[in-house]
Amino acid sequence: MTQIATIVGGGVIGGGWAARFLLNGWDVRVFDPDPEAERKIGEVLDNARRSLPGLSDTALPPEGKLSFHETMSEAVQGATWIQESVPERIELKQKVYQTLQEHAPKDAILGSSTSGFKPSELQNCASRPEQIVVTHPFNPVYLMPLVELVATEKNAPETVERAAEILSSVGMFPLKVRKEIDAHIADRFLEAVWREALWLVKDGIATTEEIDESIRMAFGIRWAQMGLFETYRIAGGEAGMKHFMAQFGPALKWPWTKLMDVPEFTDELVDLIADQSDAQSGHLSIRELERIRDDNCVGMMRALKANNWGAGEVLNKHDERLIAQSDLPRAMSDIASLDELVVTGRRAVPADWLDYNGHMNEACYGTAFSEATDRLMEIIGCTKEYIATGGSYFTGETHIRYLDETHLGQVVEIRTRVLKGEGKKMQLWHEMYEGDRLLATGEHFLLHVSLETRRPSEPSQEIMDNLAALASAHAKLPASEGVGRYVGQPR
Amino acid sequence: MTQIATIVGGGVIGGGWAARFLLNGWDVRVFDPDPEAERKIGEVLDNARRSLPGLSDTALPPEGKLSFHETMSEAVQGATWIQESVPERIELKQKVYQTLQEHAPKDAILGSSTSGFKPSELQNCASRPEQIVVTHPFNPVYLMPLVELVATEKNAPETVERAAEILSSVGMFPLKVRKEIDAHIADRFLEAVWREALWLVKDGIATTEEIDESIRMAFGIRWAQMGLFETYRIAGGEAGMKHFMAQFGPALKWPWTKLMDVPEFTDELVDLIADQSDAQSGHLSIRELERIRDDNCVGMMRALKANNWGAGEVLNKHDERLIAQSDLPRAMSDIASLDELVVTGRRAVPADWLDYNGHMNEACYGTAFSEATDRLMEIIGCTKEYIATGGSYFTGETHIRYLDETHLGQVVEIRTRVLKGEGKKMQLWHEMYEGDRLLATGEHFLLHVSLETRRPSEPSQEIMDNLAALASAHAKLPASEGVGRYVGQPR
Repeated sequence: MTQIATIVGGGVIGGGWAARFLLNGWDVRVFDPDPEAERKIGEVLDNARRSLPGLSDTALPPEGKLSFHETMSEAVQGATWIQESVPERIELKQKVYQTLQEHAPKDAILGSSTSGFKPSELQNCASRPEQIVVTHPFNPVYLMPLVELVATEKNAPETVERAAEILSSVGMFPLKVRKEIDAHIADRFLEAVWREALWLVKDGIATTEEIDESIRMAFGIRWAQMGLFETYRIAGGEAGMKHFMAQFGPALKWPWTKLMDVPEFTDELVDLIADQSDAQSGHLSIRELERIRDDNCVGMMRALKANNWGAGEVLNKHDERLIAQSDLPRAMSDIASLDELVVTGRRAVPADWLDYNGHMNEACYGTAFSEATDRLMEIIGCTKEYIATGGSYFTGETHIRYLDETHLGQVVEIRTRVLKGEGKKMQLWHEMYEGDRLLATGEHFLLHVSLETRRPSEPSQEIMDNLAALASAHAKLPASEGVGRYVGQPR
Repeated sequence: MTQIATIVGGGVIGGGWAARFLLNGWDVRVFDPDPEAERKIGEVLDNARRSLPGLSDTALPPEGKLSFHETMSEAVQGATWIQESVPERIELKQKVYQTLQEHAPKDAILGSSTSGFKPSELQNCASRPEQIVVTHPFNPVYLMPLVELVATEKNAPETVERAAEILSSVGMFPLKVRKEIDAHIADRFLEAVWREALWLVKDGIATTEEIDESIRMAFGIRWAQMGLFETYRIAGGEAGMKHFMAQFGPALKWPWTKLMDVPEFTDELVDLIADQSDAQSGHLSIRELERIRDDNCVGMMRALKANNWGAGEVLNKHDERLIAQSDLPRAMSDIASLDELVVTGRRAVPADWLDYNGHMNEACYGTAFSEATDRLMEIIGCTKEYIATGGSYFTGETHIRYLDETHLGQVVEIRTRVLKGEGKKMQLWHEMYEGDRLLATGEHFLLHVSLETRRPSEPSQEIMDNLAALASAHAKLPASEGVGRYVGQPR
């Protein structure tokens, strides 16, 4: 049977919770007296629908039903989970819990999104304190896995376990916090960084933008895949965590932050941290950890690159610089000779192009050929600027032959022949080489289209002329072996 | 002419600098009295060679020459850039600079990797202080873009500019620090978080592992693509940065961190930060910023997913759960009827599968079909466990027809026909649908191989039997339109 989640308090956080449950197949019942609640939650849902499903490599279950209710008593009917995200005022929250508990099923879990209050404070005036836990999420709630799950001795261990299971079932990562504490765990770091950042801005050392760059260009990327201690474990190298701390412990006495109230750096503390770090990742060598870290960083930074954002923008600018310094053509006038195929790409095989067979995944040949097609389009005049005017090419058909294996870090070069260039039609032949070794071929049929009508249309005269020039020059070259093959055709 | 970088002090940081320059085409001359220096730098280079080139979508220039030298005087010959990464002892560093400056070209830039010293301290006893700047990098230096570039009034602005240009030319992001300060910028945040983390561990609130999870499951992912202030700008929503600060300012008085020496939260400070944030990203609406953030997070988390690491491991577990709850077959016994094609995948189109034409990129059809092939392999018994024993399938040939456009968030389903299954040979036909609308077809020829010899080999009897059963059942179904086509064949 479809499960029901009740969202008390909409807004960005409540809306994020609604999206989490709804897109994972739960029915969601919302209570929020704000007349704008439906619009606000709708906006969060729009965002969630365009990003969350694609994170899965399989389809999410059909969306649940979303409904809005006038009263808390109506909203909590049949609820398995009730999430409270009302403003951070303790009297208000306590009053909300009293009303909720009058009407909510006795076995429902009441989770609070509070970042500031401890669960014991929320349980204080409650009729059934054992039902209430803190489940503190992070924005955007529909994407970020973390939920800090904080309980007290009034909560039965089975309740905490069931809360963790439900959070996992909607794709989240419940972190059970051992002892309740102001601001839980993650927000304590955010608060420390925030206070330090305020000092830096106030003292004129850095602007907000410079501070953001100092984070997202280095340790932010590291922390997205490992946290603080595992990163330092790697920094410590073969000598280990204890060595690292011996080296950096003295810095606690130095004026490296304006926040100077620090714990005594005793042997016991050093041992405690070293032991915990061993338990956490002692099963992996430093070399293994380094390679995991690097593969993660490559994948994430390539993702940022595809969006031309942050560290990815820096990489793209570096590519531009490298291409300008190379012999790769960007335009017809860059082509030295029409008597040979056009070099449309040259690149090393990145870590994220490999698969379980230990070589480049079949689909990534398609990626490489697609990039080569983009480059040929640019050369004949179908540039970014041309595409912005509403003309482009769509691919109709592709045939790829995998002739040899391609491995991590190999530099491959793609050479392109124009098989046909008549009016709207373009037929291309790509050859992928490492040195003189032919790795793969790609045959591609494309049609010029209007991006407005999405129908075939004539390209510009310049493009047709360039294409015809290449096609007629390439027709004089010796035929390429494998053109026109179908899948399974005997050689 | 090839430029020369001199690396004084190897180790992880010096080795990272060597890799940065070398892989970007510079000759690199190393001085390090450690007899292990060559081995240590070699290990860093091994890591860099397998990760850095793949970050670029075009080939890096040919690697420069790496050489090791007995004396500083020999190592600095002809150097354009000299990078000092010796241990953090000021007397040692000052002595190194004296020796370096006796022999180095007068127009070379001397950058120090120091995290603790201010440039004025390094310049103190130097014969040419104007040559020395701090260029503080982040580990791994060959991947992380950030370099904090700190100068004093003794450095000519042109020197600082030239340093920034050189760092950019090897793919880095030089952040010019306005005023010298202990620990520069980024390390101040690291130090604040480190101190807070020490308290949490000491007080038994969280273990090192729990602290790492609290970082990498949420704000680490956010900070890898935006920093602190831009993230908070989004949290503030339409009401803006000033509203956000009014809301969270009072928390500075609360015990949310043990580091309590905080700046006065004056109107001037509020205005200063709000103004700087406006200047930084006021040209983007909150909605635009949200979507940029989400696309970045999707791309990065999918990258982590491919590596089954951190947040990506959580996503994979969620997928497993979703597949188990769905009707998707994982084995022959899950197939309800042999009288229809096998459903081998169903998924939403993620943000990172789109291209400049506003629809799914041609190469990602290949990715989707490749995943479908993997699923069919699993069904017939070529599972992860089977592959671990040394047998697998390699794709020999692929033919894809793009019949309709596919857009962000569309749920596509792949249905698979076994065209042939004889001995080592397997020929598959994938149809990609949205509902009843056929979007694309893929025809694929695969050979079973030994992963040891990388040559064709017989699959297990179980696989051959399953494949034959599917092939003979599917042969009785009406023929699929488009099988056996070649590219450009008239319809």
